[in-house]
Amino acid sequence: MNRDYILIEDPEDPRIAAYRDIRERDLVGREGKFVAEGKTVLNVLFANARMEAESVFLRENRVDGMTELLAKIPADVPIYVGSGAVMDQIAGFHMHRGVLAIGRRVDSPSVEELLDSLPDEALVVALAGIANHDNMGSIFRNAAAFGVDAIVMDQGSCDPLYRKAIRVSVGAALKVPFAREGSAEAIVDALMARGFDVLAMSPQGALDMADVKPGNRTALLLGAEGPGLPPHLMERLTTVRISMRTDFDSLNVAAASAIALHRLWRG
Amino acid sequence: MNRDYILIEDPEDPRIAAYRDIRERDLVGREGKFVAEGKTVLNVLFANARMEAESVFLRENRVDGMTELLAKIPADVPIYVGSGAVMDQIAGFHMHRGVLAIGRRVDSPSVEELLDSLPDEALVVALAGIANHDNMGSIFRNAAAFGVDAIVMDQGSCDPLYRKAIRVSVGAALKVPFAREGSAEAIVDALMARGFDVLAMSPQGALDMADVKPGNRTALLLGAEGPGLPPHLMERLTTVRISMRTDFDSLNVAAASAIALHRLWRG
Repeated sequence: MNRDYILIEDPEDPRIAAYRDIRERDLVGREGKFVAEGKTVLNVLFANARMEAESVFLRENRVDGMTELLAKIPADVPIYVGSGAVMDQIAGFHMHRGVLAIGRRVDSPSVEELLDSLPDEALVVALAGIANHDNMGSIFRNAAAFGVDAIVMDQGSCDPLYRKAIRVSVGAALKVPFAREGSAEAIVDALMARGFDVLAMSPQGALDMADVKPGNRTALLLGAEGPGLPPHLMERLTTVRISMRTDFDSLNVAAASAIALHRLWRG
Repeated sequence: MNRDYILIEDPEDPRIAAYRDIRERDLVGREGKFVAEGKTVLNVLFANARMEAESVFLRENRVDGMTELLAKIPADVPIYVGSGAVMDQIAGFHMHRGVLAIGRRVDSPSVEELLDSLPDEALVVALAGIANHDNMGSIFRNAAAFGVDAIVMDQGSCDPLYRKAIRVSVGAALKVPFAREGSAEAIVDALMARGFDVLAMSPQGALDMADVKPGNRTALLLGAEGPGLPPHLMERLTTVRISMRTDFDSLNVAAASAIALHRLWRG
C-alpha cells in the first residue's frame, strides 16, 4: 500500500489498547467510542463527516485487498497491522474479518436539535424500548435503504453504536443521523411540535399500513415486541397495523419496519 | 401440576443425554432430532401433527406457569424437571428460558411430494443458498405471518431445524411445511411443472414488487445476499426488485422476504 502502517507484534502493545477484549467492552462502557468491523462498514465510516476514526487495525493478509479503502483514510489516522494470531489474542476471540476501526461520534445532537435540522419533507423513525442489538441494527439498515432522514429513540432503546448493532446495520448506524434521549413521550411531543404525523405501529392498529397516505412529515413509531408501545402514548396517535394471519405470533419489529418504511418511502 | 414429572438431580443422568451440550450438537449432527426452546415454541410443537416430542425439560421455577402447555403434552412424553444449576450444567451454558423439548419430524416429504400436496391456490417460498440460521428463522417467521403454504429449499440452504433457526422463527420452522433437497434448478423445475409463477427476487429485478399481480400459484425465490441467485436461473424467471435508495447496500434477505410476502399475501 501507499501508506505507512504500524506493525503490531505484541498483543500487550498499548497503542492497540482500544481493541482489547472488544466483546466485553460493549458491556463495561465504551467512553464515546465504537468498534467498526468489516470493509463495508469502514467504507461508511470514512464517507461520513459525523463520524471520525481514531485508528484502523487490519490483519496482514487483508491489507492487499484494501487499496480503495486505504486511500480514504486521513493521513493522521494510524493504521495498525497484525498477524491473525496477534489480532485474535487482542480481541479475545477469532476476528473473522480482520478489518477493524475505532471510531468516535463527532456530533451528538439532542432530539430537538436533530429534528430542527430536518428539511420540510422528512421521514423519521422513532423507537421506544428497542433494547435488542440485532433489531436495532436491522432497523437502521432498513432505514438507510428507504431514505429515512433521522432516527430518534428513548433511553430505553440500546445504543446503536454497540458493535453488534453496527455490524448488523452494515454501517447504517454510522450513516443515518440519530439522537437517543429521554422518554418516548418527550420524543412524540418533540415530533408533534414540529408538524410530524406520528404513526404508531401496533398489531391492533386502527389503520392498515397499506392504506396509509404519508404526508410531508411522517414519523413511524416502533416499540419492542412483547410490551409494545405504552397505551397512554397510543391514545394520542394514529395507530397503524400490518395485516397478517391471526393464528401466528406477530412479526419481528425489524421486519415490521421494513414493510412500513417500504410503504412510506417516496423515493 | 396435574402430571407426573421426573426430577433430574445428576447432570450425568442418561435420561437427559439428548439435552447435553446442545450448542455443539448443532454442529456435529442431530440425528433427525431438534431442540425447541421457550414456551411459545413448545406451544407450536405440541399443536403440530407433523412434529413429535420425545421429551420436555423444564427448570423447576418455570413449572407453575406452564399449566396450559403441560395439558397439551401427550401422556407418553416424559417431562423432566431440574434446578437452574443442573440445567445449565447439562446444556453447557446458561439456559435463559428454562423451557426445552427434544422434537422429531414425523414426515420428511420430498420437494415433489410437498408441492403435490398443495391446494390450487398456493403461496410458496423457494430458497437457494440461505446458509445463515438467523435469516432462515426470520424467513420462516415472515412466511407464517403471511400464510405461506410451504417452503422448498436447496441443499445449500441450512436446515431450518437448527436450534437457533427455530428460536428466531418463534416456532414457525415447526409450523410451515418444508422440504430441503437438491439444487435450486431442480426446485424451480418442480415448481414450474406444477403451474407456479416463480418470482425471483433480485436488486436488479425487471419488475417492481409494488406492481406484481400475484396469480393463483406463486412462488417467491430468494437467494443469499452477496452471491444472489445463479444467472442461468434468473434468465428463466420473472425477476422482481424492491425499489430503494441506490446509495446503500441492499436489504437483508429476511427483510426483503417480509416486504415481498406482505405484498403477495391474499389473506
